[in-house]
Amino acid sequence: MAIKYPQGQQPLRPAQEQPQQALGSSAAKRGMTLEHELNLSNQYYLSVDRAVIHKKPTPIQLVKVDYPRRSAAVVREAYFRRPSTTDYNGIYQGHYIDFDAKETRNKSSFPLKNFHAHQIEHLRHCLKQGGICFAIIRFTNLGQNYLYPASKLIQAWDQQDTGGRKSILLTTIQTDGFPIALGLQPRLDYLAAVDQLLETIKHKGVDYE
Amino acid sequence: MAIKYPQGQQPLRPAQEQPQQALGSSAAKRGMTLEHELNLSNQYYLSVDRAVIHKKPTPIQLVKVDYPRRSAAVVREAYFRRPSTTDYNGIYQGHYIDFDAKETRNKSSFPLKNFHAHQIEHLRHCLKQGGICFAIIRFTNLGQNYLYPASKLIQAWDQQDTGGRKSILLTTIQTDGFPIALGLQPRLDYLAAVDQLLETIKHKGVDYE
Repeated sequence: MAIKYPQGQQPLRPAQEQPQQALGSSAAKRGMTLEHELNLSNQYYLSVDRAVIHKKPTPIQLVKVDYPRRSAAVVREAYFRRPSTTDYNGIYQGHYIDFDAKETRNKSSFPLKNFHAHQIEHLRHCLKQGGICFAIIRFTNLGQNYLYPASKLIQAWDQQDTGGRKSILLTTIQTDGFPIALGLQPRLDYLAAVDQLLETIKHKGVDYE
Repeated sequence: MAIKYPQGQQPLRPAQEQPQQALGSSAAKRGMTLEHELNLSNQYYLSVDRAVIHKKPTPIQLVKVDYPRRSAAVVREAYFRRPSTTDYNGIYQGHYIDFDAKETRNKSSFPLKNFHAHQIEHLRHCLKQGGICFAIIRFTNLGQNYLYPASKLIQAWDQQDTGGRKSILLTTIQTDGFPIALGLQPRLDYLAAVDQLLETIKHKGVDYE
């Protein structure tokens, strides 16, 4: 592998956060916070051998790369590409885990336009293979976080075509989802909510799978 | 999400191949071929609902991003970062799948220096969680491809510290691994080799897990 990595360039925050960081919008800053907390939680889970879950890097389309002598390759022109999957996946005690993390400033519902069609399709495919799939939804202004099963998310998504709501009510999320507690280690203990999802799948079956 | 994607910029080859492409070395070109064949195979597996396996994008450290008015954000300075995981993961019939793909021009052995320590550690963690982990090794000059179980790879890696070989003999790979046939659809039917690995784990147990 001939790629040279720059010396001493390790950023304080993971590289995958930087596209949003670079955007500098308030939406991006809010997104980074949830993302940062998830990254910290995933590092913790890895350190105690509880799970191996990583955020995928943001895909970049390279156009121009320079190779200055005796130093690292420098990307001089590139564009952000739309990812073809969700942002997070990995393994937790034998289970394939797949999810995306979203934030809303709304106080009573989560707008479905926060998802792209290709992300929903990806979750649909992963569910078919037996994956444990969900969204982590943060209501920024309420300070509340939920794990919402992909099966329910996909139902809501599909019902839009037949006159259904363009958003999921908070009360629905509270009924069908699982709250995620904020803590210190891990910051967001979303695997505790995954445990509840696994129990629910065991007892209620296909509707949650 | 405020990121704008460029219009009509969809490349013919997946973006994640481009760092190697940009390097232009012969090693990179060979690497791209295996990578390209794996991407085609993964697209095929997805299209027939056999598995959901993707290559992760190459991580990039952004330094400078421009925002020309009314057009997509342009990355003006960025560097390649060393990935913290293997390149490929996903789900196959309930199994978490994790692997990396490597090529060698050697004809009688596979040099272990093709792997980085962090990749071996990642495979070790995924095995502990019950993942199906392996390397896909191509002997370019022999035109042969093998699935080699991560358990065996890690054994060879660890034995280097106690005077063991710095490479894995082709004959060992032929004994402990599984050949992957080249075809049209899929190009590399590596899931057939995964089926053999799953059978072997069932019969021989922990040594392969």
